[in-house]
Amino acid sequence: MDWENIAADLTYSSPSKIVLLVLDGLGGLPHEGKTELEAAHTPHLDDLAAKSACGLSDPVFMGITPGSGPAHLALFGYDPLKYILGRGILEALGIGVTVEKNDLVARGNFATIKDSLIVDRRAGRIPTSENEKLCQKINAFLEKRKNPQIVLYPGKEHRFVVKFSDAGLSDSLSDADPQKDNKPPMPTLPLSPEAEKTAQIVNSFLDDVTAFLNNNPQANTILLRGFSKFPTLPSLEKLYKLRAGAIAHYPMYKGLARLVGMELLEVGSAVEDLFASLEQHYQDFDFFYVHFKKTDSAGEDGDFTSKKAAIEEIDDYIPRVLALEPEVFVVTSDHSTPWLLKSHSWHPNPFLLFSKTALPDRASRFSEKECSQGYLGRFQAIYAMPLMLAHAQKLKKFGA
Amino acid sequence: MDWENIAADLTYSSPSKIVLLVLDGLGGLPHEGKTELEAAHTPHLDDLAAKSACGLSDPVFMGITPGSGPAHLALFGYDPLKYILGRGILEALGIGVTVEKNDLVARGNFATIKDSLIVDRRAGRIPTSENEKLCQKINAFLEKRKNPQIVLYPGKEHRFVVKFSDAGLSDSLSDADPQKDNKPPMPTLPLSPEAEKTAQIVNSFLDDVTAFLNNNPQANTILLRGFSKFPTLPSLEKLYKLRAGAIAHYPMYKGLARLVGMELLEVGSAVEDLFASLEQHYQDFDFFYVHFKKTDSAGEDGDFTSKKAAIEEIDDYIPRVLALEPEVFVVTSDHSTPWLLKSHSWHPNPFLLFSKTALPDRASRFSEKECSQGYLGRFQAIYAMPLMLAHAQKLKKFGA
Repeated sequence: MDWENIAADLTYSSPSKIVLLVLDGLGGLPHEGKTELEAAHTPHLDDLAAKSACGLSDPVFMGITPGSGPAHLALFGYDPLKYILGRGILEALGIGVTVEKNDLVARGNFATIKDSLIVDRRAGRIPTSENEKLCQKINAFLEKRKNPQIVLYPGKEHRFVVKFSDAGLSDSLSDADPQKDNKPPMPTLPLSPEAEKTAQIVNSFLDDVTAFLNNNPQANTILLRGFSKFPTLPSLEKLYKLRAGAIAHYPMYKGLARLVGMELLEVGSAVEDLFASLEQHYQDFDFFYVHFKKTDSAGEDGDFTSKKAAIEEIDDYIPRVLALEPEVFVVTSDHSTPWLLKSHSWHPNPFLLFSKTALPDRASRFSEKECSQGYLGRFQAIYAMPLMLAHAQKLKKFGA
Repeated sequence: MDWENIAADLTYSSPSKIVLLVLDGLGGLPHEGKTELEAAHTPHLDDLAAKSACGLSDPVFMGITPGSGPAHLALFGYDPLKYILGRGILEALGIGVTVEKNDLVARGNFATIKDSLIVDRRAGRIPTSENEKLCQKINAFLEKRKNPQIVLYPGKEHRFVVKFSDAGLSDSLSDADPQKDNKPPMPTLPLSPEAEKTAQIVNSFLDDVTAFLNNNPQANTILLRGFSKFPTLPSLEKLYKLRAGAIAHYPMYKGLARLVGMELLEVGSAVEDLFASLEQHYQDFDFFYVHFKKTDSAGEDGDFTSKKAAIEEIDDYIPRVLALEPEVFVVTSDHSTPWLLKSHSWHPNPFLLFSKTALPDRASRFSEKECSQGYLGRFQAIYAMPLMLAHAQKLKKFGA
């Protein structure tokens, strides 16, 4: 759709508030006849659904299982087929690495090499503390090398992010990762002619670091994948004139929020803190993205009971949001993570929109099945943003 | 969609009849738990809905509030994001100004200028009668000037339409309107080289009229915006091989019908006359657009009771249409105008399609909620035309 082309013309700034609560991986599949959401005791969500316009949204389109990147971009009103995000950039933003125009980033693993074979792609999942020490040592070593500037940023266990800073770097590179154990290491290959110089820089860096790590027992080489430069997305401010605040615990979601120009709000580590932060900053923004992770984690673990419990946990906080009286309150998900699949899936997201201009429908509680009876029907998630803006009365009429 | 590109290949002329009854601004919002349509006593529409395929249609896409132009174009099978109608042409159509190929039209305001600043963009909303007198005087003055021919047509209060008639005029012009009070007047600027001569003509006209209005107290200058030429849309005849007749009371809808090549049918001023005209011309066309305005007017007034009454009024005429036994009878709206918003809105349109090839569904009466349960689901209004053509058996098979 041409949404983005006309959005800048139609949107205007107003004091009305939108709260988008994303219950990550919410949609599920039945266990003894009931999905996670159907089995959960959710009096507040059910009451809200009965007063809301409901529907089912497809993150990309029917049948497509999205990563967190495209799933969130769609919810934020960005065409996920147009804005393709590299893994490297998501990881970098997630751990708070500042990425500028001339930077190239990639996800890294410490790995174990033996007799010219990668025997463990995760270096025995070394402790985070060891990872941090190694990154520090390597960075000191790299400082003595020639340009370009290269810095490693430790993540959890064996994971890190590497950032190359120089003019003219390209992200048109294949992964320097054999993807499976007991294969020889792979250099990166340029995927287009302008990436040839960058590939040389990366491969020379890989050789040097492997030589430097030579005496380490486990973490004695590194693998890199998801090379990416900073994507240039128009900000929510620019596209929709929204001052947006993000409340999330996990780096990935903070990173996605930063990518579209949201301000990251301070938040404690408990679920309760998500809502305390919302209350605290409520006057400062007109769009809030609140991210709840536990539903997805439980789904990824294939743990029906934990996922049900996570849904019940979040249900308790619904009245706290309603007490703020936002003009628009949406509860949905980025993608489904059914316990049965133990992974993201292509199933659509339950979606409810509460607003005084939303028409309540036949969906009498918040579940996949009830939402399928809703007034919003089944729609692509990218329409969530125009819908939220419309109900918040932040959109002018199109044409005369 | 590529609909337009394939429509010419798939459509064929046949004697079957399609009646499209547009109840302007039909969709609404609850008042004491019921929308305008739900509160209205509509035995005929309800009976028809129970026998029809129902759904909800979005004029442009979810969240977008359309003007009458894009909303009608979509219903007539024209992509509203492709065919953008200028403000000037819609305003001209709205007050019944005949616009030809060589004409350039714009919306005008009488305004107040003082010490070289526009101090009131609406000239204190002068009475319509004063507007009419001023237009008459200016037209007399303009007749004495050189070519091209320029005529003002009064609208309500401070509003008018101006029409420039000459070969080679361009509408690639910026607005001659500072948009805000207490700014200096702005000449129009050519937005492309071929509009340079037109810009000179317009600006010299502006100077002359301002000089002419010099002694007026309030209305002593004019502002122009939305310059537009007559848009060239392929006709319904060309696109769909339809001989189409339009039955409407108001200039805007007559104008829109003319724009797509419909023939305007004679009609008296009563609601009953809409259906008398349909009966009278029934043998002469194979597509009829019948426009009912009162639902929208009542919605714009925020008058729930009047809107309900308007719906009940039109319900009485449903049997008159059915008695003609059209192969396809559609009742829907161009856009919603909920009493609560007192304006066009983004809410989808209730839609029913009655035909011997339409599958009746769970929608047991004609309302927003019931239509949300319908067999047609929620769809973009541009699909209404292929659907009507299909049920009228005016569409060939696509592919082998």
